[in-house]
Amino acid sequence: MSRPRAAIVVTGSELVRGERADLNGPFYAREALLLGLDPASLTIVGDDAGDLEAALREGFRSDVCLVSGGLGPTHDDRTIELVARVAGRPLELDPALEREIEQVSRRFAERMKREYADFAPGVTKQATLPEGAVSLGIAGTAPGVVLDTGSCVVVVLPGPPGELQQLWPRAVASGPLQRVLALTTRPTRRVLRFYGVSESLVAKALADAGGDGDGVEVTICAREFEIHVDLIVEPGADARADALQKAFLEPLKQFLFGRDERSVQELVLQSLREQGRTLGTAESCTGGIVAARLTSVGGASDVFRGSIVAYGNEIKTGALGVPDSLLAEHGAVSAEVAASMAHGARERLGVDVAVSVTGVAGPAGGTPEKPVGLVFLHVVGPTGDLSLRIELPGDRHLVRARSAVTALHLLRRSLEPPV
Amino acid sequence: MSRPRAAIVVTGSELVRGERADLNGPFYAREALLLGLDPASLTIVGDDAGDLEAALREGFRSDVCLVSGGLGPTHDDRTIELVARVAGRPLELDPALEREIEQVSRRFAERMKREYADFAPGVTKQATLPEGAVSLGIAGTAPGVVLDTGSCVVVVLPGPPGELQQLWPRAVASGPLQRVLALTTRPTRRVLRFYGVSESLVAKALADAGGDGDGVEVTICAREFEIHVDLIVEPGADARADALQKAFLEPLKQFLFGRDERSVQELVLQSLREQGRTLGTAESCTGGIVAARLTSVGGASDVFRGSIVAYGNEIKTGALGVPDSLLAEHGAVSAEVAASMAHGARERLGVDVAVSVTGVAGPAGGTPEKPVGLVFLHVVGPTGDLSLRIELPGDRHLVRARSAVTALHLLRRSLEPPV
Repeated sequence: MSRPRAAIVVTGSELVRGERADLNGPFYAREALLLGLDPASLTIVGDDAGDLEAALREGFRSDVCLVSGGLGPTHDDRTIELVARVAGRPLELDPALEREIEQVSRRFAERMKREYADFAPGVTKQATLPEGAVSLGIAGTAPGVVLDTGSCVVVVLPGPPGELQQLWPRAVASGPLQRVLALTTRPTRRVLRFYGVSESLVAKALADAGGDGDGVEVTICAREFEIHVDLIVEPGADARADALQKAFLEPLKQFLFGRDERSVQELVLQSLREQGRTLGTAESCTGGIVAARLTSVGGASDVFRGSIVAYGNEIKTGALGVPDSLLAEHGAVSAEVAASMAHGARERLGVDVAVSVTGVAGPAGGTPEKPVGLVFLHVVGPTGDLSLRIELPGDRHLVRARSAVTALHLLRRSLEPPV
Repeated sequence: MSRPRAAIVVTGSELVRGERADLNGPFYAREALLLGLDPASLTIVGDDAGDLEAALREGFRSDVCLVSGGLGPTHDDRTIELVARVAGRPLELDPALEREIEQVSRRFAERMKREYADFAPGVTKQATLPEGAVSLGIAGTAPGVVLDTGSCVVVVLPGPPGELQQLWPRAVASGPLQRVLALTTRPTRRVLRFYGVSESLVAKALADAGGDGDGVEVTICAREFEIHVDLIVEPGADARADALQKAFLEPLKQFLFGRDERSVQELVLQSLREQGRTLGTAESCTGGIVAARLTSVGGASDVFRGSIVAYGNEIKTGALGVPDSLLAEHGAVSAEVAASMAHGARERLGVDVAVSVTGVAGPAGGTPEKPVGLVFLHVVGPTGDLSLRIELPGDRHLVRARSAVTALHLLRRSLEPPV
């Protein structure tokens, strides 16, 4: 079966100049894939009207064209005008939409202590849509719009990723897009997450298991020391997917840590919540990243209580109670100090489980004995201790990020029932 | 002067599906900009030949077309064949290039303990180029290629970012690209960074100052509550840029915090370093993000000493010395507790300057009096106290990120000399 094709058109000068990474194109692409569409092209253009018009003209040749950006109130924001031109539709004011945007803009003007009159022309512009377009309501002050040109369903959403993602479900639910989606079938998606194994070993396991194809498409993606594998399974290919997955997992079982989208920090918090235990961290080279990742999860506070970021040695002694003698004898980057930091955090923070990280993040501070990338980690909990020495490749940014991921996976392992 | 236009075409199935972020497009775009080219569009397509051909056909309408990917030995790798077709050139074997790729492939076959004969057809394919193309030599087993079609200089480099970046300087140095670059001049770039002002007010100030054009191009970009403005100035337009910048800055002076690429955390650390002062943080809702951002800067350790992440109230009392009575009377999210946290961190961590953050990050925990997004911040240092109450829009992720940025800018302001 051939799937309806989706073209993606993203506009933003800073994106086409490479100054900011585009998040909307990849978001649209992943969503299109899961809806059963075939994401065929992703084009980024700046605010040059000719470039945007050419990209839209090409994009409208697909069954669906997903557009982001250029919906603001200023003269540079020309997406709607150009969509109308390429679709051959006149522009017309949507009075209900205008009232909706006006309300938001009046509140904003008030907060900024400015005259609403300054905003009025922008509001009228933002409420002017191609004839026949459906408004999806607004995020920020920009509306989401769906237009069926007859040969292509065009979805136009605002450029800020949060606003685009907020309006996307309404675009999916809209009549025009639902009519396209009725012509296709959604594949199902199976998620496998691994830690502690290389991407090439996972690729080899897949090839040895027979590889993908025949209704099962497999993607392997390395993300911050984890390997994320997705199986996209066409309707009817479940038996083939089961067989492939079984053979593929056989040599990788020990590295599998998840079969859904939950992050390692969510898994750790969930385990501890079930055990009724509390958690704290003691961080040196990660400087708070482990705590920040744990607290990124809503509702973390019932498990995660706090952290002591002991960057300076005097904080390690003062706030964590690491003995001066231990620092003098072994150095701040050592298994002994990592253990002492974890025990200190457990006691001082009054938590059940504590994890510590101390290492050389670089770029300075490395020595032949303790090179940049050397990291010691330690977990202490009611059932005992677990420690790890690891040498991580990469620059300062990567060493810190990978240290934090390693700490979270060490925590996860420490919480698993003993085999 | 109008600059030569550069179109960028990137091929890769995993990229068009949003499964992996494209790094080559932004790299090409930044490099093109600095060379004096105008990066006009960036198109990502999968391995469908029709999509790639259409993207190349559109790209060849620019003065320069920068292509990446699809140069491997397999039948899916069709970039060279399609470049030849769109350029109307026959394919021909480059015997010198074939010998070069053969050498690498023979070594590889040996290491893999496989017959070279298995590789030979791929080698011949990879050494077959459009008539008139210039080989740039190889990275991995894939060659870089430059082709002048008469109206467009096409650069084709391998997809792996390391290989592409390795061959890029040779593409820049090649005759065809040098002939295009001789028609343009490299612009200079001026950077202005603002905090505490909306993107629309900055856009208005620019319009009131006469707007860009006449050799000065201005981009305005909102990033995590900061507004980053770049002026791209053509040679000869410096006087125009000076005048525009002066008029533009007049109403925005109070919000300007930087004229270079340094982040707010770098500025804070530099100020404190110059003053010979140390820094610590006390964080509740940000959960360590402020400390993590400060320690993302190499060499932070001479200024930043540590942090207490006091997520639970018992940590606020135990580790920071916030009185129980204060928590009972005002609640954890209050100006009084923020002040007490900052003072507690200053004392307990033994630092000169401390900043605290406490707020409702959501999604749960909001009340009519203290809604999600309400955040209190406090800085205490040798010269006194500075406090801030702010209501931040957005979801949990945004409230936390914006709280951290607000804390860093409050720190920055507290370190500025009094007016």
